[in-house]
Amino acid sequence: MGAAFSVTTSLSRVATLGAMGLPVVGMVGGGQLSRMTHQAAIALGLSLRVLADATHDSAALVANGVTVGSHESLADLEAFAAHCEVVTFDHEHVPGHLIASLESAGVNVQPGSKALLHAQDKQVMRERLQALGVPVPPFAPVTSAAELQAFAQEHGWPVVLKAATGGYDGKGVWVVENVEQALPVLAAGVRLLAEQFVPLRRELAAVVARSPYGQAAAWPVVETVQADGICVEVVAPAPGLSEDRAVEAQALALRLADELGVVGVLAVELFETVSDGLLVNELAMRPHNSGHWTIEGARTSQFEQHLRAVLDYPLGATTMTAPWVVMANLLGGDGEPDLDRRLHMLFARDPALKVHLYGKQVKPGRKIGHVTALGDDLADVTARARAGAHYLRTGRWDQ
Amino acid sequence: MGAAFSVTTSLSRVATLGAMGLPVVGMVGGGQLSRMTHQAAIALGLSLRVLADATHDSAALVANGVTVGSHESLADLEAFAAHCEVVTFDHEHVPGHLIASLESAGVNVQPGSKALLHAQDKQVMRERLQALGVPVPPFAPVTSAAELQAFAQEHGWPVVLKAATGGYDGKGVWVVENVEQALPVLAAGVRLLAEQFVPLRRELAAVVARSPYGQAAAWPVVETVQADGICVEVVAPAPGLSEDRAVEAQALALRLADELGVVGVLAVELFETVSDGLLVNELAMRPHNSGHWTIEGARTSQFEQHLRAVLDYPLGATTMTAPWVVMANLLGGDGEPDLDRRLHMLFARDPALKVHLYGKQVKPGRKIGHVTALGDDLADVTARARAGAHYLRTGRWDQ
Repeated sequence: MGAAFSVTTSLSRVATLGAMGLPVVGMVGGGQLSRMTHQAAIALGLSLRVLADATHDSAALVANGVTVGSHESLADLEAFAAHCEVVTFDHEHVPGHLIASLESAGVNVQPGSKALLHAQDKQVMRERLQALGVPVPPFAPVTSAAELQAFAQEHGWPVVLKAATGGYDGKGVWVVENVEQALPVLAAGVRLLAEQFVPLRRELAAVVARSPYGQAAAWPVVETVQADGICVEVVAPAPGLSEDRAVEAQALALRLADELGVVGVLAVELFETVSDGLLVNELAMRPHNSGHWTIEGARTSQFEQHLRAVLDYPLGATTMTAPWVVMANLLGGDGEPDLDRRLHMLFARDPALKVHLYGKQVKPGRKIGHVTALGDDLADVTARARAGAHYLRTGRWDQ
Repeated sequence: MGAAFSVTTSLSRVATLGAMGLPVVGMVGGGQLSRMTHQAAIALGLSLRVLADATHDSAALVANGVTVGSHESLADLEAFAAHCEVVTFDHEHVPGHLIASLESAGVNVQPGSKALLHAQDKQVMRERLQALGVPVPPFAPVTSAAELQAFAQEHGWPVVLKAATGGYDGKGVWVVENVEQALPVLAAGVRLLAEQFVPLRRELAAVVARSPYGQAAAWPVVETVQADGICVEVVAPAPGLSEDRAVEAQALALRLADELGVVGVLAVELFETVSDGLLVNELAMRPHNSGHWTIEGARTSQFEQHLRAVLDYPLGATTMTAPWVVMANLLGGDGEPDLDRRLHMLFARDPALKVHLYGKQVKPGRKIGHVTALGDDLADVTARARAGAHYLRTGRWDQ
C-alpha cells in the first residue's frame, strides 16, 4: 500500500460530457451502492458510468453505461476513466498505487488516493487519527503470538484482531479469547491489528459529505445495530443521544473529512462506550449502509450528495423528512425466496414501507436489499422496518 | 381506431423474469416518464425494459434493457413484448389495433386497449363520459364550417377545436373566434371536436392508480397552471379547495378508473369553472406531469405506483410528505444553456430544491426537466420552485 506511484503520461480523454452538456461520472464497482447512486444520477441529468466485474452485477443490471473490467487492472481503469469527468468508487478495493497512477495521468479521482488510504488501511487510519488526537480504541500491529500476548497483557482478553486491509461486513475481524484461538489467524499471512475489546453501549455513525471546494454537510447521527458483524438496522436520529454528543460526533466527522481531504461521502463508524465516550471504529469514503435511510428520510440522499460532492456542486440540505426513520437490511436466508409473492404480501400489509432490492443473487447472510419505514413513533417505525425485512427474508411474520 | 383486430397466434415468451426472479416490465416509449419509471423500478429490484425510438431518448440514456424500434410496428412491439411479463406505455401513440393484436397473442398489456382508447380518442372519451353522467364541456364532432357555425350558435364564440387524436402539450388545440379563423384547421384533414369555451376559475388534476385486482388509490387533488397550453406548475394540494370538492374530484377519478377498467396511473385533468362546478377536460393513463411532485412529495411516487399497479401488487400509501409541494416544469429557452454552471448557482442558492433533468436536447418550449420544492409555507415553496425553474431556463433570478 501507499506510495508506489507508476506514472502514466498520456491518458487521452475521450468524451467526458454527456447529455445536456453535463459531466459524466464514473463509479468503480457494480454493487448496490453504484446501483443506488445511478438512481440519484438520473435525476441530476447525469449518465453514471459503471466499471463492473460482470454484467450481472447489481448496478450493471440497471445502468446504461456499463464497462466490464477489473478494478485491479490499470489498463481497465484507464480505459474507463477516459470517458469520465470524475471517477469515484463504490468500494475500497482499488489498489492505492493504481489510483495514484490515474491521478498522475490527470484523472480527476474523488476521493483521492491520499484520502482513500485511510479507508483502505486500518493501521494507517488508526495511526493518523491517534496523531490527530481523535479517540480510537487502544491498538497495535501484531505479527506474532508474542506480540499478541504482550498486547493482551496490557489491555486484557478478549482481543479484537483485524486484517489491516480488505475486510468488510464482519469479514477480516476475529474476537479471540487467548493466543491459541488466534494462531490460525496469525498464520494466515495477512497484516493484522490488535485492538482492545471495548465494552460498548452501542454503535453510532456520523455521515457527512465534503466537496473539493471545502463545503461540508452532516446528516443527523444514527444508531447502527450489528449482528455477526453485519449492520442489520439503522435508526435516525440515534435515540436518546444528547444534543452535545450528537454535535460532538458530527464535528468529529467534519473535522476528519477536512483533515484527511475527503471528497464525497465520509461515514465515521463510532463506538459509544459504556464509560460514555466516543471512539472511532471505521471510516468509509463512499455512500455507506448507515446512510441508506437518507433516500426517503432526508431532503438530500447520500447518493445524490456523493455525486454533488465529487462534481464540486454545492451540497444539498440534510434535514430529515420525518421525525424517525428506521432502515432494516434484508439479508439472504436459506434457499431462493419467492420474492415476487412476498412483495405482494408485504405491500398488502404495509403500504407505506419503502422496499429496495438490489438485483443480487440470494446467498445466506448477503445484503440483497433493505426496507425503510418513516413516521412519528419510534416503536412503530422500528417494528414495521423489522417486520418487513424479516418477512422478505423468511416468509414469516413472527420474529 | 378501435376494433381492427389483427390476430397473432404464436408469440413466444422468451424470458419474462429478471434478477431475483422478479417480473420484467416493458415500457413502450423512451421519454422522461419511462426515465423516471426506471428510477422507481430499480428500487423494486426490477429491470425496466424500454422500447425507444432512438438510443439518445431520455430513458434510453439511463436504462440497461433498451430496444430501439417503432411503437407503430407490430413486429417491433411483438419482439419487445416477448421479453416482458407486462407491457405498459409512457405515451398514448401506439395504435389501438396493434395493442389489441398483442392482447390477442396473450401479452399482458396494461392499461388494456379498451381502456386506453379513452385516453387516445377525445370523441370516444367525451361520449363515454357523457353516457356515464360525468360532467364534460358541451361538445360535438365537426367536419365542416356549417357544423361549426351551428355549434357556435348554440354555445357561443369562441369555440375550442381539438384534434380527436394525437394532441399533447397544447398541440392539436385551437381557440377560434369565428368560422374564418377555423377554416385552416377544418381543411387540415384531422378529425375534430368542437367544445364550448368554458370560463375557468382554474385547472385541477385528480391522479389515481388502479390495479387489475381492482384496488385503487388517490393522491391529493392538485392545481395545475398552464401557459400556452403547456403545464408549467403544479401545486399540491390545490390551495383553497374545499374538502367536499376534493373528495368529489377523487371519487370521480376513482369511478372513471373503475368504469373504464384502467390499470396503472389515471390522471383526470379537470376544469374548475367560474360557476364552481367540475368538468373533465382530458384523461391520461400513465404517469402524468401533474404527478411529478409525488417523487419527493408523497410516500409512494406515481412512477412506483404505476409499476405496482401494472404488476398487480398492492398499491402504496399516497400520503404527502410535507404540507405543501410545488413542482415547476423546466422548459427549454433560446440557445444551449450551460446547465452545469447553472446547477452550481442554483444549488448554492437553494440547497433543498430537488432538480430533475431529463437528458433531452434543449429546444424552445420543450419540457427538459422539473424542480420540486417542499415545505410548510405555500408562498415560500411556490417562490422557490418558480425561481429554480426560471433560473435554470434563463440564467436570471428576476422573473
